[in-house]
Amino acid sequence: MKLEKLVGDRFKEKPSDCVVDSHALMVRGGYIKFVANGIFSSYMPLKRITRKIEQIIREEMDAIDGQEVQFPVVMPASIWQESGRYESIGAEMARFQDRSGSPLVLGMTHEEAAVHLVREYAQSYAKYPFMVYQIQTKFRDEARPRAGLIRVREFTMKDAYSFHTSQEDLEEYYQKCHKAYERIYARVGVPEVISVASDSGMMGGSVSHEFMLLTPIGEDSIAICSECGYSANMEAAECIIEKETAESNTAECIIENETAESNTTKDSATEKLTKVHTPDMHTIEEVCSFLGSSPEKSCKAVVYQRNQDDSYVILFIRGDFEVNETKLTNFLGCEIHPAEITEESGIKAGFIGPVGLCDGVTVLYDRSLEDASGLVCGANEVDYHYVGLAMDRDVAGAEYHDFAKIRDNGICPHCGKPAIHISRGIEVGNIFQLGTKYTKSMNMTYTDQNGEIKYPIMGCYGIGVGRLAASVCEAHHDENGPIWPKAIAPWQVHLCAVRADQAEVKEAADRLYAELEARGMEVIYDDREVSAGVMFSDADLLGVPLRAVVSPRNLKQGIVEITSRDKTLSEKAPLEDAASVIENLFKTL
Amino acid sequence: MKLEKLVGDRFKEKPSDCVVDSHALMVRGGYIKFVANGIFSSYMPLKRITRKIEQIIREEMDAIDGQEVQFPVVMPASIWQESGRYESIGAEMARFQDRSGSPLVLGMTHEEAAVHLVREYAQSYAKYPFMVYQIQTKFRDEARPRAGLIRVREFTMKDAYSFHTSQEDLEEYYQKCHKAYERIYARVGVPEVISVASDSGMMGGSVSHEFMLLTPIGEDSIAICSECGYSANMEAAECIIEKETAESNTAECIIENETAESNTTKDSATEKLTKVHTPDMHTIEEVCSFLGSSPEKSCKAVVYQRNQDDSYVILFIRGDFEVNETKLTNFLGCEIHPAEITEESGIKAGFIGPVGLCDGVTVLYDRSLEDASGLVCGANEVDYHYVGLAMDRDVAGAEYHDFAKIRDNGICPHCGKPAIHISRGIEVGNIFQLGTKYTKSMNMTYTDQNGEIKYPIMGCYGIGVGRLAASVCEAHHDENGPIWPKAIAPWQVHLCAVRADQAEVKEAADRLYAELEARGMEVIYDDREVSAGVMFSDADLLGVPLRAVVSPRNLKQGIVEITSRDKTLSEKAPLEDAASVIENLFKTL
Repeated sequence: MKLEKLVGDRFKEKPSDCVVDSHALMVRGGYIKFVANGIFSSYMPLKRITRKIEQIIREEMDAIDGQEVQFPVVMPASIWQESGRYESIGAEMARFQDRSGSPLVLGMTHEEAAVHLVREYAQSYAKYPFMVYQIQTKFRDEARPRAGLIRVREFTMKDAYSFHTSQEDLEEYYQKCHKAYERIYARVGVPEVISVASDSGMMGGSVSHEFMLLTPIGEDSIAICSECGYSANMEAAECIIEKETAESNTAECIIENETAESNTTKDSATEKLTKVHTPDMHTIEEVCSFLGSSPEKSCKAVVYQRNQDDSYVILFIRGDFEVNETKLTNFLGCEIHPAEITEESGIKAGFIGPVGLCDGVTVLYDRSLEDASGLVCGANEVDYHYVGLAMDRDVAGAEYHDFAKIRDNGICPHCGKPAIHISRGIEVGNIFQLGTKYTKSMNMTYTDQNGEIKYPIMGCYGIGVGRLAASVCEAHHDENGPIWPKAIAPWQVHLCAVRADQAEVKEAADRLYAELEARGMEVIYDDREVSAGVMFSDADLLGVPLRAVVSPRNLKQGIVEITSRDKTLSEKAPLEDAASVIENLFKTL
Repeated sequence: MKLEKLVGDRFKEKPSDCVVDSHALMVRGGYIKFVANGIFSSYMPLKRITRKIEQIIREEMDAIDGQEVQFPVVMPASIWQESGRYESIGAEMARFQDRSGSPLVLGMTHEEAAVHLVREYAQSYAKYPFMVYQIQTKFRDEARPRAGLIRVREFTMKDAYSFHTSQEDLEEYYQKCHKAYERIYARVGVPEVISVASDSGMMGGSVSHEFMLLTPIGEDSIAICSECGYSANMEAAECIIEKETAESNTAECIIENETAESNTTKDSATEKLTKVHTPDMHTIEEVCSFLGSSPEKSCKAVVYQRNQDDSYVILFIRGDFEVNETKLTNFLGCEIHPAEITEESGIKAGFIGPVGLCDGVTVLYDRSLEDASGLVCGANEVDYHYVGLAMDRDVAGAEYHDFAKIRDNGICPHCGKPAIHISRGIEVGNIFQLGTKYTKSMNMTYTDQNGEIKYPIMGCYGIGVGRLAASVCEAHHDENGPIWPKAIAPWQVHLCAVRADQAEVKEAADRLYAELEARGMEVIYDDREVSAGVMFSDADLLGVPLRAVVSPRNLKQGIVEITSRDKTLSEKAPLEDAASVIENLFKTL
């Protein structure tokens, strides 16, 4: 392919609306064109990359007995009504009516379509297990598309669905798929991707993992234990609270040395609940500073409202912890939003506490407060707080659950050591154990060996192709452009004819181009009459693994200069052997 | 791949809702699953077929310098407003709003997206010509989906768009693409596809061709001249009228021998326009039979209304011709529908004629009436007709245009012989010369060699992948199933182990399966413990080119039976050589 005819503009200036490198480089390199918020067209270089990624994914899915199928992009609302998600999913699902008024949706995931495809087929245990997958366009009306291909509204995804007759069989297949995913990331050039335990969100099910490429521009926060290797999405990571008790002192390591304080703590357990005047102090910080206390010794109230009826939920949590809203949502089983507190509610914003709270609200307690005493809290009266709150004495019968966000330097829920570090990551894939959520709701059954009717158990497995391409770019680039791994690079060799206006150069380069193509290599050939500078910066933007330069200076020496895009390799090959040298170099990359 | 695990049911009974063979066989063979009207999921066998078709198309598009890109499925209304098609296209375009209320559409074709992708890039003549294409899902809300994959609402299509700086360059590329299409149809196994001149419809432009697979179940009518090979879609074919004049008698051949009548005709030219009472006769047939005339000697009125304002259009045409509404729509430049004639309109339904017609309606005349005389027509008065109408005398100044449908045995507009035959066909592709319709409306320009600003000229080229697969099935099947051409068959060899419960059979078949796979052949392996009858009928439904049978009887003779799906070939190979014999046989198919 001649670069001269490659559709798409390449340029130097970083577009002002690009905040992440992969986005900027994909725009600057003529990979994508913005069409609408979160919607892009792809030019040929990206299309070649994504097709190679898709083929790698396809091979790995086939290797674990996946059957490639195709579900519709446009689906009748009816199958989503069967599963209940037509109602439970919000604005992110695109809905419209056809010419006859029938409601349709755009597929954002295909559990329903998968069950619909196989439920007549798989009525006997003998048909199990099996997995079907597709690679196809999806649309999810994201509220905040960002960062180029990292978070879009329209995307191409491989989504796979497996069906099993036992949890053990699902788990075995889940592990197989986990390994296939590891091979996929290794093959596309990002072996550094890690898997982390995650929250299943709207997919249902319990066990799930996300595959994360760690990068500061990622939008997910991941808790990783530097001691045992435990990793989880912050949304899912259990928050372990170091208790200020005798036991906690015996733990190998605690973050803050609370020995001195814990003496006070023991005293404070006997402290009396006392109301104090705290005029115009609404935040934990203000109150603590006024009373000479600290956030760790306060009981903070965080107020939400349920989306469905705006009823109030008040969560009490130790002042130094943050609420993990995913845990709270999962616990409540419904969507919530931060509260707007009205006067009629009886809630005294800024002065909320667990003692003497008004009726008619749901009250929850985070585990960080369990057994805590000597706390500051609101007195449910304007301008008043309590000091000396002891949870077991003053809030008898409270139940404690895990609603807190895990913190940097926090305690690992797996090994118990305070070795948690929070990193940022891009989710480049996920796998879910779905259980029977969809088979039950959509009434898919099979007859087991004993003639009993049962619901099959499902797993589902996704990878976003465009996001993966962008993530590889994010992980492998320099200031001049992407450094595409050889397995997914748009071409294998970038051939430059510097001073192609000189017949000798043009002839030699044309010949080398023909020889490389004859060897089956994928060559992008730049024989434009432009400066070497323009040529090389275009080559950097296309990020092809090997660059070969034919130039008047090289010709004088009878050689071709070969360099790798990642700069680890620079060779000179005799002109006559250049094609074979390039072919062999490519193999060794 | 083991047939035992192939997801999808195969069965014998023809589904009652299937009226065409390809539809019935694709349902019976486990290729497709109905999801909603005109929307299907594909099982693995069809997915394998369509992927092979796509790869053939891709190779042929790349061979004519096409660049594979990808446009969005979901597009902002804005780019369709630019071209004007947001308004001009009706209910077949799916429209919805995103969460912020912005209007979006689902792509049913991508001229707008193509111009959007390249208009900044292609601002200099030096960038031309170029072609971009994609293979992607589209949605068109067809009023009447039918016949399985023949006419659907959601479909995968290859759509290509070329850009040129001159009409000559477009025409040259158009021919190149025409040849590429011929290669595609030949390679997928339907070399019998013909190209016919067509109407460009909503795509704009003038010259266009459809590629047609002739079959009685096709929904298009095609006029083909058995003398000169001229072919055109009925919608586009010019209708030549044999004139009842001296000249027409000198034509080499006319359909009806009108010599006797034409004498009468000369007399009838002098016949007076006379009103006659025709009580309760509304149709041409009733009136002609009453007056002892014939439809050829009548002037029929066909009444339409413009969609935009319901204004009336009355078209007069010779009684023996039908109206080609496509020609009428193109002439009017707007959409029409059959009229509902109200009393207020002043139009006397059933008695409409060109003399004394009420005002306020558009009146058009088909060429079939030019110079005609001695005609029967309505008198624009209830229960009255005229006889003796002479067009040039009584409707002086009328303009005549071609609005008639070409007829079986009609005159070829190319060679002039009455050798037109009407066949049915499925449109399996189309190519259009679009001109500047989209570049002008979307303001895409380039600077030519002389520094002048010009609009590029476009061509566009489509192939529906699923419909092509169904058409191949329609063209190549027997009562037992599809007979897939080798290039697109889901597998290459269908291996049957008859009586796989016998260890010897299972062992020999397993070994042959392994050997064939080692040779890189695509094998579907049936080692189920079912009867040979079930095995063979399943094999017929999957339509794989070669079937190899390992059975107790064959083993006794030390052979494997190999037959081709089309029954042209039946061989016995020694068991030990079977893999290599099969491989070689496949090559010779």
